[in-house]
Amino acid sequence: MAGTNPLIDDRDVELICDELLGTDRLLALPYFAAHDKATFAQLIDAARTLAREALYPAYRAMDAEPPRLEAGRVHVHPKMRELYRRLVELGLCAAPRPESVGGAQVPLAITSLAAAYLMAGNLSAYGYLGLTQGAAHLLEAFGSDELRATYMTRMYAGEWTGTMALTEPQAGSSLADVATIAEAAPDGSYRLRGAKIFISAGGHDIADNIVHMALARIAGAPAGMHGVSLFCVPARRVEGDRLVDNDVAVTQVIHKIGWRGIPSVALAFGERGDCHGWLVGEPHRGIRYMFQMMNEARIMVGLNGVATASVAYHEAVAYARERTQGRPLTAAGRDAATRPVPIAQHADVRRMLLRQKAIVEGGLALLVRVAQYADLAQHATDAAERARAGLLLDLLTPVAKSFPAEYGYAANALAVQVHGGYGYSSEYLPEAWLRDQKLNSIHEGTTGIQAADLLGRRALVPGALAALGAEVAACCARARAAGVTAAWIASVERAVQTIGALTAELGARGAAGDPAAMLLHASDYLELFGIAVIAWQWLDLAAVAKAALAGPLPRGTHAPRDAAYYQAKLAAAQYWLMTDLPRIDHLVQLCRSGEDSYAALDPAWL
Amino acid sequence: MAGTNPLIDDRDVELICDELLGTDRLLALPYFAAHDKATFAQLIDAARTLAREALYPAYRAMDAEPPRLEAGRVHVHPKMRELYRRLVELGLCAAPRPESVGGAQVPLAITSLAAAYLMAGNLSAYGYLGLTQGAAHLLEAFGSDELRATYMTRMYAGEWTGTMALTEPQAGSSLADVATIAEAAPDGSYRLRGAKIFISAGGHDIADNIVHMALARIAGAPAGMHGVSLFCVPARRVEGDRLVDNDVAVTQVIHKIGWRGIPSVALAFGERGDCHGWLVGEPHRGIRYMFQMMNEARIMVGLNGVATASVAYHEAVAYARERTQGRPLTAAGRDAATRPVPIAQHADVRRMLLRQKAIVEGGLALLVRVAQYADLAQHATDAAERARAGLLLDLLTPVAKSFPAEYGYAANALAVQVHGGYGYSSEYLPEAWLRDQKLNSIHEGTTGIQAADLLGRRALVPGALAALGAEVAACCARARAAGVTAAWIASVERAVQTIGALTAELGARGAAGDPAAMLLHASDYLELFGIAVIAWQWLDLAAVAKAALAGPLPRGTHAPRDAAYYQAKLAAAQYWLMTDLPRIDHLVQLCRSGEDSYAALDPAWL
Repeated sequence: MAGTNPLIDDRDVELICDELLGTDRLLALPYFAAHDKATFAQLIDAARTLAREALYPAYRAMDAEPPRLEAGRVHVHPKMRELYRRLVELGLCAAPRPESVGGAQVPLAITSLAAAYLMAGNLSAYGYLGLTQGAAHLLEAFGSDELRATYMTRMYAGEWTGTMALTEPQAGSSLADVATIAEAAPDGSYRLRGAKIFISAGGHDIADNIVHMALARIAGAPAGMHGVSLFCVPARRVEGDRLVDNDVAVTQVIHKIGWRGIPSVALAFGERGDCHGWLVGEPHRGIRYMFQMMNEARIMVGLNGVATASVAYHEAVAYARERTQGRPLTAAGRDAATRPVPIAQHADVRRMLLRQKAIVEGGLALLVRVAQYADLAQHATDAAERARAGLLLDLLTPVAKSFPAEYGYAANALAVQVHGGYGYSSEYLPEAWLRDQKLNSIHEGTTGIQAADLLGRRALVPGALAALGAEVAACCARARAAGVTAAWIASVERAVQTIGALTAELGARGAAGDPAAMLLHASDYLELFGIAVIAWQWLDLAAVAKAALAGPLPRGTHAPRDAAYYQAKLAAAQYWLMTDLPRIDHLVQLCRSGEDSYAALDPAWL
Repeated sequence: MAGTNPLIDDRDVELICDELLGTDRLLALPYFAAHDKATFAQLIDAARTLAREALYPAYRAMDAEPPRLEAGRVHVHPKMRELYRRLVELGLCAAPRPESVGGAQVPLAITSLAAAYLMAGNLSAYGYLGLTQGAAHLLEAFGSDELRATYMTRMYAGEWTGTMALTEPQAGSSLADVATIAEAAPDGSYRLRGAKIFISAGGHDIADNIVHMALARIAGAPAGMHGVSLFCVPARRVEGDRLVDNDVAVTQVIHKIGWRGIPSVALAFGERGDCHGWLVGEPHRGIRYMFQMMNEARIMVGLNGVATASVAYHEAVAYARERTQGRPLTAAGRDAATRPVPIAQHADVRRMLLRQKAIVEGGLALLVRVAQYADLAQHATDAAERARAGLLLDLLTPVAKSFPAEYGYAANALAVQVHGGYGYSSEYLPEAWLRDQKLNSIHEGTTGIQAADLLGRRALVPGALAALGAEVAACCARARAAGVTAAWIASVERAVQTIGALTAELGARGAAGDPAAMLLHASDYLELFGIAVIAWQWLDLAAVAKAALAGPLPRGTHAPRDAAYYQAKLAAAQYWLMTDLPRIDHLVQLCRSGEDSYAALDPAWL
């Protein structure tokens, strides 16, 4: 089975580019002018090939032999050095960035599709690249010319890697409590002292240097968020033409249950008083800057979630087609002398497969759409379009992060379930992907944090929900034109209207000075928002499918497989719109209600 | 944290015995006449002590060093031999059985509570005992005097262990396809040939012999279920006063992702043509007999699910009380100079804790109630009461198995989530319990099989739903008398009425000859049934709590903790009745609908 796992469905990638989102829109923008469909396809194809031929085949070994700390050095799987070299060769690290900094001005929508293959093949391996990209982008956006020249260029070139070093043992998700201290030194740099934890790729032996983008507090800075600054803290600092040990010690490698190809470490800055850091941007604005990287990282986590659910889904489909067991619920099926059928013939197995498909493909459509908003927010020529896309990107980021984390986890559990007893064995891969997926609801802001962020801040930004409403209305118009079932369209329209009214109602509670009442059911709000947003993706996919099935097939080369392909899209759309979308009514009611069971609960009662 | 985990809340055990179910009812029955409350308490207390002092402390080591196969012998963790000796000493193995076979005539309701501690402490360790009990009970019920004397007595005594050897590699859950062959031998025994897989405790080094209760087909038997017979197949057979190798080879130890203290193995019977088996009961009735063990095993799996969720819940509560991070959503909370608070102060963390509590304690109440139905079905003096209890036991078995498997898994995932980044580390135990829990939706009949069994067979048994309705009505009367909120009572009453009407409607589709239409949404049916049954438990618990809070506290020794204890019960009842129970409306609608997305899906489309 494993040998032929496609990781991501190639046809879905084509459909997203050509029929759903339309990359033509992006190609019309000056920033992307050097490209055409062929260069996009080339990049995606190179990633796909690397993922299938090198990353995926290394996955099991990397899961089995996690990184280890020996004499202060972190050793990762020996395959990883070569894999990283090949990942760098793809040119993805700086691909979306301007040519002026060594980039190729490729849309994020395209690099996301390329990355999806790499993540599905081996999400740990991709992790090194993704973190480096985010860290270098911080230096590009906020660093001095010197920092950019010294560090950013080498990171974009794939020579050194990067990290985001936020979390501290005592503070966890609470960045206001960052306690690492930075003392100004006479040369204009700082000396850092402090401890960080859960720093992904914070130590390894695949490159010569690691550049930590670290949050710290300049000595004497005010307490809280507004006293936190951003520093560039290399593991080895540049002195003349030498690299000098910068007093950044790896004190622990966490024994993670998944993502076992990339280390998560604890770091000690300045144990010998010799850890140099360079301020990035202005003092005390670190959290603000870091949000750029965190927002990018949240989208990356969402894509990780989709990719991890995707590879498991394809494994489950292949297994369900091959594995024979039991007989159909028909008179003939009761005859034990007949041959058992593939388990995909059992309706309940198809339910588990279709649910996975709806989560995976709806999730991928959302993530690429959000990436396209990021492209438009940066590069659209029209200021109003940039603003609109920016609103949508900000609004949808918590959903794009959490939906794949939570529903992707459920999808991965179903992939194990489809494998039955074999799914419970580590000789099959679905259990490994289930372990990998579990992190996505925890890192880069837990699901609870995403919920509070969505309802407490992003959904209340003026114009945000209106922009979403306009997008959905346009989708409904396409669906209507294509002849999609009216009830499906109406259900999505109603969902978005309901969210608008609900948000106004809850926002008023916050505005009245009671944020706790507003956020009482924030997790239900995030969930219903996610369900509705995925329903929108499925309505749009249904419109594409319906149009394709009605006319002559638009892409003759794919027929006759294509009819079945589009039929399956309609089945998944029906599944999501008829079985999951109606669940939001109850969630809306909960958000409105004063249901206070856990709010009123005294923890001492437990 | 770990040192003080209570595994199961002692006060809940008291409440279930004294206030919720009332063990007095059982003590009034002749079969249990030798007992009193003190002997029950003694048994539970002995189990609790063993679980806390020996089983739980060994859990981590057994998870870390799973069984291994060397030269045909399975070696389990070296601690296990001594743990098994101490488990046997508890006297639990034969405790529910009659004195005539070496038992102690203890109610299953009591042994279940005792077992819950043992499972929560170390579910693999308990597994050896539970399987032995079930296998010996099969011999007791259907075996010849000779088989009982030779095997059953030694199993009940804890000298030898037992297994259920049903599954075969090619057949999985489809018992109609059992292909192991039994040829009659001149001495009245049989010679078996065939392969079994996923046999728990099918090989180990903690006892001198293993007695497999195996399904096989007598040569020439008809195809399908009705040609399958039950055999007693010891690993070593008794010849005179010697134990002789019986040609049962362990060919593989499965690399399971959880339950790593108990091996799951593949067996080969008769590779040398010398595997003797003895027919249990009559030919071709094996599936029928095995259902006794399977039904018992399903309840055991449900209890495993509850126990595994319970130990993780207690760990999460302790962690959430100790771990400080962030500040409350108040004006004062915005001041970063104030100290961070324990995370249990955050409403969303309490949501995750209360959800776990609702699942764990609602599940425990259900499992003990079902065990009490088993006691009454066997030992009530009134025939009508025996029949009624038997109907309820049969009806609720799939729910008692699946609810803890599915919702317990969600609860275990929440325990990981509460631990944040630490939850993703194998240095904390929640991830291990999450792995353990995953098996419960797969073994002893997958959740899909339980769904088909509930809706396709058990719920349609005449009188079954009426018996459930009467139980719930009695609970509602208690709740009304205690002054429980009328809306809570009404919601449970309505849920049970809805289930009755829905079942009649779906049953009619089956009776009309369309079982596929009846079972189209069987998984939704199982889910809504489970939610409603747990709502009934919480209504009953609320009635107990309300009564206790209204009057002078019935058990003076517990005050003043008791008021908080009962308040928490009301909070969990509110949570379940107001947030989960309303979800059934949508599920009912789905069951009624012809929503056929996955039913109509051609697997070739995927």
